[in-house]
Amino acid sequence: MITLSSDFGSPYPAAMKGVILRDSDARIVDVSHEFPRQDVPGAAFWLREVLPYFPPAVHCVVVDPGVGTDRAAIVVRVGDHAIVAPDNGVALPAARAIADDGDVIEVFEIETDEPASATFHGRDVFAPMAAAVHEIGVDSLHEVADLVRADGYEELAFPEPTVSQTGASGAVLVVDGFGNAITNVPGEAIEDRFGQQVRINGEPAPVRRTYATVDPGQRLVTVGSHGNVELAVNRGRGDEAFRVGAGDRVELSY
Amino acid sequence: MITLSSDFGSPYPAAMKGVILRDSDARIVDVSHEFPRQDVPGAAFWLREVLPYFPPAVHCVVVDPGVGTDRAAIVVRVGDHAIVAPDNGVALPAARAIADDGDVIEVFEIETDEPASATFHGRDVFAPMAAAVHEIGVDSLHEVADLVRADGYEELAFPEPTVSQTGASGAVLVVDGFGNAITNVPGEAIEDRFGQQVRINGEPAPVRRTYATVDPGQRLVTVGSHGNVELAVNRGRGDEAFRVGAGDRVELSY
Amino acid sequence: MITLSSDFGSPYPAAMKGVILRDSDARIVDVSHEFPRQDVPGAAFWLREVLPYFPPAVHCVVVDPGVGTDRAAIVVRVGDHAIVAPDNGVALPAARAIADDGDVIEVFEIETDEPASATFHGRDVFAPMAAAVHEIGVDSLHEVADLVRADGYEELAFPEPTVSQTGASGAVLVVDGFGNAITNVPGEAIEDRFGQQVRINGEPAPVRRTYATVDPGQRLVTVGSHGNVELAVNRGRGDEAFRVGAGDRVELSY
Repeated sequence: MITLSSDFGSPYPAAMKGVILRDSDARIVDVSHEFPRQDVPGAAFWLREVLPYFPPAVHCVVVDPGVGTDRAAIVVRVGDHAIVAPDNGVALPAARAIADDGDVIEVFEIETDEPASATFHGRDVFAPMAAAVHEIGVDSLHEVADLVRADGYEELAFPEPTVSQTGASGAVLVVDGFGNAITNVPGEAIEDRFGQQVRINGEPAPVRRTYATVDPGQRLVTVGSHGNVELAVNRGRGDEAFRVGAGDRVELSY
Repeated sequence: MITLSSDFGSPYPAAMKGVILRDSDARIVDVSHEFPRQDVPGAAFWLREVLPYFPPAVHCVVVDPGVGTDRAAIVVRVGDHAIVAPDNGVALPAARAIADDGDVIEVFEIETDEPASATFHGRDVFAPMAAAVHEIGVDSLHEVADLVRADGYEELAFPEPTVSQTGASGAVLVVDGFGNAITNVPGEAIEDRFGQQVRINGEPAPVRRTYATVDPGQRLVTVGSHGNVELAVNRGRGDEAFRVGAGDRVELSY
Repeated sequence: MITLSSDFGSPYPAAMKGVILRDSDARIVDVSHEFPRQDVPGAAFWLREVLPYFPPAVHCVVVDPGVGTDRAAIVVRVGDHAIVAPDNGVALPAARAIADDGDVIEVFEIETDEPASATFHGRDVFAPMAAAVHEIGVDSLHEVADLVRADGYEELAFPEPTVSQTGASGAVLVVDGFGNAITNVPGEAIEDRFGQQVRINGEPAPVRRTYATVDPGQRLVTVGSHGNVELAVNRGRGDEAFRVGAGDRVELSY
């Protein structure tokens, strides 16, 4: 199985699929091609939330604002999974989330002399490598042509929230397609306050378990499916109602 | 085969696919993840139009404005198909459309003690159930864990049009991505009037078989691929030209 | 393998998939359902860029502003590929790009008496034909029911650029989802000018190999993954910055 993730929209991923299907008969599963454009932390967040639900697979990830520069291309092995991606940190949070106890994260670098277009490494570098890794097997990365153990690699860490007895201080990590603003504040910060009010950036909002417990159009603070505090509106957009976007600070006070 | 339908956009459906692929090797086919947000009648319409074209399958449907409330989750069996969905009526028009003569619609309720996130039952309830039904088989729903025969279930009916000798009175059911306003008025109401004019909400419009028989930008009234009267514009948006949206009344007069 | 391409958005392609899966167990791969609406040259461009990367397949293409008129429906055979499409030229550039040396392009016409909706031939004509061709095999098109050798067919040619010693004169073929304006001017026109400036429609712009070599928000002229000159903005939209859209003229002067 090969999963595909990118910020390419349509139709560029189809060329990647064609390349993969020329070289393998892997089942292909689209994770998303609608990641926020050239937003490496945003894509890293979604991959961390989604890839751990998959069975062992080769994950081909292309969110790559540095395409055509000298940024490296890597393959990250963790357990029975491999993630093929640019070396910009996008794969690391997902790799750590996939890792079971005792799993080590190993990183290989793609060293190829093949001519690649300067602008579409998804088709010319990452898709062929994903197919090659799939065919040889995640256990045998040392046998894959053009792959060598990396000396180092780019890390990526999400901003850390602070939680205190009077509230929490954090940031919006991403806004999903519904307009829910997903923060880095752990759900524990509000989990004994359902039914009560808190303040978000100074303004009061009710803490609720589910969207439908407030009227349509009303704001709420909830624990999202990722386990984090979310700023939402029932049948509306939380990012607009709370006036926040990805990266903005969120002060939660009891 | 498991089909997936939701209003989730991207990337939430990928987590559902991961969960399904952990538990089964079913072929997964996306019906749509772009259903109108939290619009149960709209989704029910599209499912009724699309699912009957599929061979026997497990259809996993998540358009669920009541997620996290005490609405039930159900599995609807009809013929060799099963539809896994929230108990809000979204599955019923499709089930009736799939039913052949003599097919009975049976409804089971999902009773699970598994912890689920309050907000993402697609991943935590519906996808695992779709995989379980697929693995055990639609004929053996009584053997699926956490599934019991339902005492009752929510129905959903589309508004009924009235057709008379002077025209028809109905409503817009949905607007498709092209901007065609699909009504509940049966195509028979105009099928002997191609080439003539009718009035829609008082304004004249030509009745045509195909979009291309009027100039680009011009309005027309036609019979859509669903067999219903559609308000359209050749290479444009019928909803804007006729100033109607989902739920609005449509008075057609000869 | 059957690939699907259309301008249908969602959920109409799902009905096509259902029809195909009733008649065959082909692997289905979506190329795109987001082609520019009813833009035959735009779709023809993307198909030419993407389909040659695929292994032998049946490609089902529906971009069909003439649906319901007397335009013919055809199957184009080239090598081990077949393209099922309306006879409006959309398939021809891709067929020529797929053709290896010595491959001949053969065109068959779909002659069916089956009732089809006037507006959804994707579901009623093209999908069933794609499944039939897949089941019988591209080598045996003469055995497919309702398929006869065509007397002729519609061609489609992209506008030809002119390249001189002082620059090049061409047009924008398509704008991709990133906002890159892809022209018909061959990359050779600028390939010895990286690092220099040229003028685009009179205004200076730097020629660069990659987006990331200019600051975010800055314009550049580059060679895209298709080998053509592209007008782009690093992390922005080239079409807006250069004020061009599909079909607009592009004068490049050194």
